[in-house]
Amino acid sequence: MKETSASLETMAEEECIELLVRHHLGRIAVLAGGQPLIFPVNYAYGDRLIAFRTGTGTKLASAPNARVAFEIDDYDPVTGAGWSVVVQGVAYEITDAVDRQSQLARQLLVTPLAPGQRDHWIGVHPTEMSGRRFRTTV
Amino acid sequence: MKETSASLETMAEEECIELLVRHHLGRIAVLAGGQPLIFPVNYAYGDRLIAFRTGTGTKLASAPNARVAFEIDDYDPVTGAGWSVVVQGVAYEITDAVDRQSQLARQLLVTPLAPGQRDHWIGVHPTEMSGRRFRTTV
Repeated sequence: MKETSASLETMAEEECIELLVRHHLGRIAVLAGGQPLIFPVNYAYGDRLIAFRTGTGTKLASAPNARVAFEIDDYDPVTGAGWSVVVQGVAYEITDAVDRQSQLARQLLVTPLAPGQRDHWIGVHPTEMSGRRFRTTV
Repeated sequence: MKETSASLETMAEEECIELLVRHHLGRIAVLAGGQPLIFPVNYAYGDRLIAFRTGTGTKLASAPNARVAFEIDDYDPVTGAGWSVVVQGVAYEITDAVDRQSQLARQLLVTPLAPGQRDHWIGVHPTEMSGRRFRTTV
């Protein structure tokens, strides 16, 4: 067993938000009939809202009005350095929402990862946000 | 709004398994008191078991004997090409398990992402596995 002399550093929320703004591929975890599921999504972050587009399917059926988790991360296997940001929040369908936050979100460029009709917008309002930088021995 | 001319291709299970074998950074989704959570983990895959180490904490409290999701993915923002593998399964603590699968898993090299005592082994037995390759316009 190789042991690690790893390090771990907690990020401030400002740094989490910077990383959320700068990245566009994340993962959302939803609960579907007692089964947690993870979906990669192309997202945009603006004005404290994580927004992505989806078609009809499990994400649209499970996410709205439910608690979800959202995660982004990066890891360099050469240096062993990585980071992750995890958001807890509540998801809403914002396709037709007229509040300023939802309207802004729909103006952000969000290219879905999969082809087909992706006419529904989901917005995740963060209730908790945490980030960490880690380094493993390589 | 930029529209996508993306493509999507489903992977065979053999290809999902090859990717699980080759990679070592994944994400596990667990349910903790009604809230889905996502944790990045360093893992190893062998003999149809996803194994990782953890200390005492939310993962150890929430994962064992519960349904979980596990995900790996990769995306190249330059070409727009990416893939993801999503596993649904049940997690067990296998720290002291004497079955062949669990013993094999503990021999696999799993360097935790975070420092500190990580004396507990969690094994995820896949019940469903799906993979897809996607390409977005860039």
